[in-house]
Amino acid sequence: MANQQPSSSQWLIGVDVGGTTVATLLTDAQLRPVQTLVLATDLSSPDATLDGIAAAIQQTLDAAGVTADDVGAIGMGVPGAVDVEHGISRMAVNLHWYDYPVTPQLYARFGVPTFLENDVRVATLGVHRFDNPDCKQNLVYVSIGTGVAAGVILDGKLFRGRQGLAGEIGHWIVDPSGPTCNCGSRGCLETLVSATAVVRMGREAVAAGKPTRLSAYTPLTARDVYAAAAAGDEVAQVIVAQVGAELGRALRNVVLAYDSEAIVLGGGPTRAGTQFLQPIVTEWERQHTTSALARALLRPEMIRIADPARNMGAWGALALAAAHMERQAHG
Amino acid sequence: MANQQPSSSQWLIGVDVGGTTVATLLTDAQLRPVQTLVLATDLSSPDATLDGIAAAIQQTLDAAGVTADDVGAIGMGVPGAVDVEHGISRMAVNLHWYDYPVTPQLYARFGVPTFLENDVRVATLGVHRFDNPDCKQNLVYVSIGTGVAAGVILDGKLFRGRQGLAGEIGHWIVDPSGPTCNCGSRGCLETLVSATAVVRMGREAVAAGKPTRLSAYTPLTARDVYAAAAAGDEVAQVIVAQVGAELGRALRNVVLAYDSEAIVLGGGPTRAGTQFLQPIVTEWERQHTTSALARALLRPEMIRIADPARNMGAWGALALAAAHMERQAHG
Repeated sequence: MANQQPSSSQWLIGVDVGGTTVATLLTDAQLRPVQTLVLATDLSSPDATLDGIAAAIQQTLDAAGVTADDVGAIGMGVPGAVDVEHGISRMAVNLHWYDYPVTPQLYARFGVPTFLENDVRVATLGVHRFDNPDCKQNLVYVSIGTGVAAGVILDGKLFRGRQGLAGEIGHWIVDPSGPTCNCGSRGCLETLVSATAVVRMGREAVAAGKPTRLSAYTPLTARDVYAAAAAGDEVAQVIVAQVGAELGRALRNVVLAYDSEAIVLGGGPTRAGTQFLQPIVTEWERQHTTSALARALLRPEMIRIADPARNMGAWGALALAAAHMERQAHG
Repeated sequence: MANQQPSSSQWLIGVDVGGTTVATLLTDAQLRPVQTLVLATDLSSPDATLDGIAAAIQQTLDAAGVTADDVGAIGMGVPGAVDVEHGISRMAVNLHWYDYPVTPQLYARFGVPTFLENDVRVATLGVHRFDNPDCKQNLVYVSIGTGVAAGVILDGKLFRGRQGLAGEIGHWIVDPSGPTCNCGSRGCLETLVSATAVVRMGREAVAAGKPTRLSAYTPLTARDVYAAAAAGDEVAQVIVAQVGAELGRALRNVVLAYDSEAIVLGGGPTRAGTQFLQPIVTEWERQHTTSALARALLRPEMIRIADPARNMGAWGALALAAAHMERQAHG
């Protein structure tokens, strides 16, 4: 009984690589979680980042007493533009990766088939497979963090577009006279609804001398603004309502673009829960009062927040690995 | 030699049904045009509209000396919401059709397999098949008329969405404080860029007493506004520039939604040609000056106007009929 695992079983690993942490998830062949690990991302050099990821994988295996030979596939999500076919990170600004060969290097170390995809798309796979009680086959996952982007599932499959640009709704121009975006354009959606935008609006309110408790937070985070709104801070409530109305309009446009059955929201600010969701629903309900189209189109039950108890990035990376095993099994 | 047509050949018919005219196109099996006909749409009753369409088909056949027995398939585009599977017009406001069984009735008369689809989607099929020199397999056709809507081709196939709502970009809210739309919401794209919107802006300029020759046109059309702009009318030029800037932003958002390779524009105002296209390109070039993303994403050569010499509605309906024959031929 030295080795209780059935010889036919193949373990799977999902890795979520962010600018702050590397999170791993090891499961058995039935996708039951066995081990997780979170390490700080080593940003000292592009190679050091890769070494840190490899170390995180090795530590996860060691902690579970599993060897790489027993692993069937590794899935991984990384920020930025990805060459999915060759496993190359085309551009991940925060990781200082430019045309960096991620999966070739990991394959050289572990000898395990490894699959790379953009982190928002990976989280979308996670939501589709592991946080989808009604088995919706047409859904959009909207990631709201430093930036904003959508992952799109059409007919049960990830829709990347020809160049992998499909779903980059954070750069939809929604207010041509709005704030300047990192992309150089003005009034992109993410300048109005990202976590970064919420913090900027909070700071602007403080700088303008508005009566708000937001001045007490240093550094101010988007979560703080939502917490202050929940606690009755009227200045924070105005920000939260504005963000909700803007997101409500953008999500209408998402529904009209993709005819989505479900919209799932994730990322830091969404952890405010109802406080985050309700202003979006309020905007949809406001549209219902004047528009039959809006009543037919925008059903509040279509929108929800991704399960905050699960790291959708790591679970989605696992889905990427599992998809490889399933392709193998079906020839 | 009484019948010179090879017995194996099957003629095809495309029908474009609008609120003003019914246009037919008869081709041989090699999709060579043989006969076309344009009749006024009979709007005296829902059944009269159907009778008029059937009469147009019969007259087209008669003029070419072809009988319905020789026709392999009929394709048809109609405005509004369509149940493609059952050939039912769910709602075509201008035709007064609500749950009207179009293809069952035409099949009862002609005994020919008949296929129905929304008119903008049909025109999109026409552009994809007959006005696509580079054989782009990811393109968006944007119809600009009384309303605005997009037809989307992804990986060579029409993308309808689950409920057939995908591409209804005319109801993207782009200016929450903008004009009230027919749909009941405010600031939908079509309230700012449709032919109807151009006429409204022209009339508003006249009513405001602005120095413009637009007051000379009764009734004023969108084409008149473009013609006046081309002739140097500064008030008309401002309208044309505004519409182009708004469309330029909307088409950026289209590219980010679908990762389109090509955007093809059609509908009345687009017949103004360069006068219509240039202000859109000007907005994209304006974005290029500040944004590397815009430079990479928005290439002016991606946008063009559909061939004005062809009725894309009728040709697309023909593509619908031809697709049926091809499915038959391939089992």
